[in-house]
Amino acid sequence: MNPATQELKPVYQEMAEEVKLYGYVEVSPFVTRVKIALNLKGINYEFIQEDLDNKSPDLLKYNPVYKKVPVLLHNGNPISESLVIIEYIDEVWKGVPIMPNDAYEKAQARFWSTFIADKCHPALFKAIGSHGEEQAVAEAHELLQFLENELNVKGTKFFGGDNINLVDICAGYIAHWVVAAEEALGIEVVTKDKFPKIAEWCGNYINCQVVKDCLPPRERVVAYYKGRFGKA
Amino acid sequence: MNPATQELKPVYQEMAEEVKLYGYVEVSPFVTRVKIALNLKGINYEFIQEDLDNKSPDLLKYNPVYKKVPVLLHNGNPISESLVIIEYIDEVWKGVPIMPNDAYEKAQARFWSTFIADKCHPALFKAIGSHGEEQAVAEAHELLQFLENELNVKGTKFFGGDNINLVDICAGYIAHWVVAAEEALGIEVVTKDKFPKIAEWCGNYINCQVVKDCLPPRERVVAYYKGRFGKA
Repeated sequence: MNPATQELKPVYQEMAEEVKLYGYVEVSPFVTRVKIALNLKGINYEFIQEDLDNKSPDLLKYNPVYKKVPVLLHNGNPISESLVIIEYIDEVWKGVPIMPNDAYEKAQARFWSTFIADKCHPALFKAIGSHGEEQAVAEAHELLQFLENELNVKGTKFFGGDNINLVDICAGYIAHWVVAAEEALGIEVVTKDKFPKIAEWCGNYINCQVVKDCLPPRERVVAYYKGRFGKA
Repeated sequence: MNPATQELKPVYQEMAEEVKLYGYVEVSPFVTRVKIALNLKGINYEFIQEDLDNKSPDLLKYNPVYKKVPVLLHNGNPISESLVIIEYIDEVWKGVPIMPNDAYEKAQARFWSTFIADKCHPALFKAIGSHGEEQAVAEAHELLQFLENELNVKGTKFFGGDNINLVDICAGYIAHWVVAAEEALGIEVVTKDKFPKIAEWCGNYINCQVVKDCLPPRERVVAYYKGRFGKA
């Protein structure tokens, strides 16, 4: 990281400050993204458990548009949407960078993280929700192929290179949640023989200590998907 | 803008450089977003007209994921997705800032521009495409109310304050395209009496010189929507 850039960042962590994360049941991959970003930066925060069936007045006040978690509250300022929160965390707190420093690499990180969040996520869960219906799986595979190619071209351990970045954090739901859903249903959507680089990346990602600290226990996620998709 | 931040930005415009914008038929609000950003920065560029029915090998190579315009090519590096391109332009070129400098305001700009692009845009064109069907209009109004409130709370000429920023550029399709589609169909979706602040903002936006330079002629957009939505 450019030392000059670092100096521009306010050293908030030396002030007495309020950092609260509104989340819910520990299986949310979106809330976990924010937990990982805060963990990377070594930020202490208060976790506030939301009840989805009875959302708190605070959640409705802080995220009136989507009424969803995660919401980060920093010194009274609420921020919603996991990708927006992660970029905010990276800009406000020094330490391990989450975004690349170079403008072009930064644009690429934003491109891929949006693709993974907006395109791959619904396609993968549609394929899972359909218990592996052929057409749904084919559509998910078409998208996954782009990630496989990207990892192939980069030839690095993570999308971020030697270390995780925004793209890895964003793709984390594949490594932990999709894999757990596959186990719950006894199907394989992210087929290892078709996507060996993604399979390798999944292993690298969940074995990264800063990630491991924040992941909900595998068996709880499996149990959640067994309930959600209705198969024992 | 913080002078120290400015110094960190590479002075690319002093180098001989390649800037190409791949776009198509001048009615695209997405391509226009990028044109406005480039115009704000005073960047010279080559505009490459794409034929949507016969996409060029360059477009397919530079944006293999979406195969869509706009694509910005900067010194050989392709960037896709209008919001990603605009942030890139703002980071690479000095001059009039497009993003706020403050981290919280930046997060808010990202939040609103994504909301306007991902939520309001499809809802508005669904309402228009249905020729003003009640339920579709009600859904669009629910979203527009958030923008109306935001403008009310800010009390400024633009979402960006005294000057346009990412959010204004992103919302520009409402001021020019939605209004033209309303004219084409003889309906009103963004009702002026219900959304006076948005109506005022629309006027402010299209009268901003840097925007005006880049907008396709109103009558061409009207003609396009007459054709698209099948009503004379």
